[in-house]
Amino acid sequence: MPTFDLIALDADDTLWHNERIYTGVQARFARLLSPYHPKEVVEARLYQTETRNIKSFGYGIKSFTLSMIETAVELTEGQISAKDIQAIIDLGKGMLDAEVELLEHTAGTITRLAARYRLMVITKGDLQDQQTKIARSGLGRYFQYIEVVNDKTRDIYSQLLKKLSIQPGRFLMVGDSLRSDILPILELGGQAVYIPYQITWLHESAEIPAQDTPGFHQIENLGQLPGLLEKLDAG
Amino acid sequence: MPTFDLIALDADDTLWHNERIYTGVQARFARLLSPYHPKEVVEARLYQTETRNIKSFGYGIKSFTLSMIETAVELTEGQISAKDIQAIIDLGKGMLDAEVELLEHTAGTITRLAARYRLMVITKGDLQDQQTKIARSGLGRYFQYIEVVNDKTRDIYSQLLKKLSIQPGRFLMVGDSLRSDILPILELGGQAVYIPYQITWLHESAEIPAQDTPGFHQIENLGQLPGLLEKLDAG
Repeated sequence: MPTFDLIALDADDTLWHNERIYTGVQARFARLLSPYHPKEVVEARLYQTETRNIKSFGYGIKSFTLSMIETAVELTEGQISAKDIQAIIDLGKGMLDAEVELLEHTAGTITRLAARYRLMVITKGDLQDQQTKIARSGLGRYFQYIEVVNDKTRDIYSQLLKKLSIQPGRFLMVGDSLRSDILPILELGGQAVYIPYQITWLHESAEIPAQDTPGFHQIENLGQLPGLLEKLDAG
Repeated sequence: MPTFDLIALDADDTLWHNERIYTGVQARFARLLSPYHPKEVVEARLYQTETRNIKSFGYGIKSFTLSMIETAVELTEGQISAKDIQAIIDLGKGMLDAEVELLEHTAGTITRLAARYRLMVITKGDLQDQQTKIARSGLGRYFQYIEVVNDKTRDIYSQLLKKLSIQPGRFLMVGDSLRSDILPILELGGQAVYIPYQITWLHESAEIPAQDTPGFHQIENLGQLPGLLEKLDAG
């Protein structure tokens, strides 16, 4: 019998590449401001602005774009031109239009898992953007539920499981962020599979749990998930 | 026996005032651009930009703010100053921080309905912003489910009802937008209560259904909802 009633997966950098879109745009943003400040200053200040704005703006590309604009105004002491402001908005639009590039093992694993488990996506960011990406990924039909949340805290997961009538002990979350995908689930008594991605946004970093923490699993890529589930199901 | 398993309410301009925050900010935005263009031109162009951007940005204050910035750059042919750009971002932040002002009958009606029905909020806009408003409204505890959706189409409502295992015929939606809250629900075979608000955003306007359309109800304010429900429950 399957160990889990529901398997939820994070989307960005778990199903498809995302962080590299941000780092690419950040590099272009730093080039735009290079007449004023070196790259390191621009990036540090942008991160500060993003962090300060999360409380009112939340996560996602629109917030990121507004934070880039604000950083540009501040770092140029109001010297930035309207043309460059438009260039920043266009960077944001380019991110929203960016092609969805699945990670290497995503398609094969998701189709395989969907045959045996109820699957769900739980992701942060802009509602519209995330739903568009799921649609464009071609994977939408394999997921019973899609939830875009404004944060991934223990409370938010707890409410979500309650809404779906799922016991935490029969729930598995898979993702690349210790802070958002793994630690809150372990606290709730669920199980969580950590798949590190090549780049982690500073904001998402956290200490890795001991490998023998109950419910904690770590694999190298999504292709190893079906094997792990077979082991868990065999108990 | 209650006629409905679930009653969902729109939030903006159904539970609390919203559109007047937008119109107030629009007026300030038009004043900011008044050295370049008359109010009518600014407002028409802003509406155009918003409409064009909905596809990539979606609804909500962050989209609106980005559309204001883009409109300002375009309408001033790049002459707008960085200081004014920051002023626009601050208008957006002010909207996000605006006090939640409940409509006159909201608190009394919601507490009364919650004693008899399962209640839900279904709203468009920014996830973070809407959830913050629900929390600040003090009404969060009366709603079993809160869904922020990127659009209110027949398909999106249909998926939502499926997820919650609710039959459309036992579902009631209450809201101020014919286009978003009423027509898609009637198409699905649900019932819908239209409560016009004093201002309707052009984008949400639609033709009103005939008063004898099955499932369609219209009242003047939320305070009349309990009475309508008693009549419907009495059959």
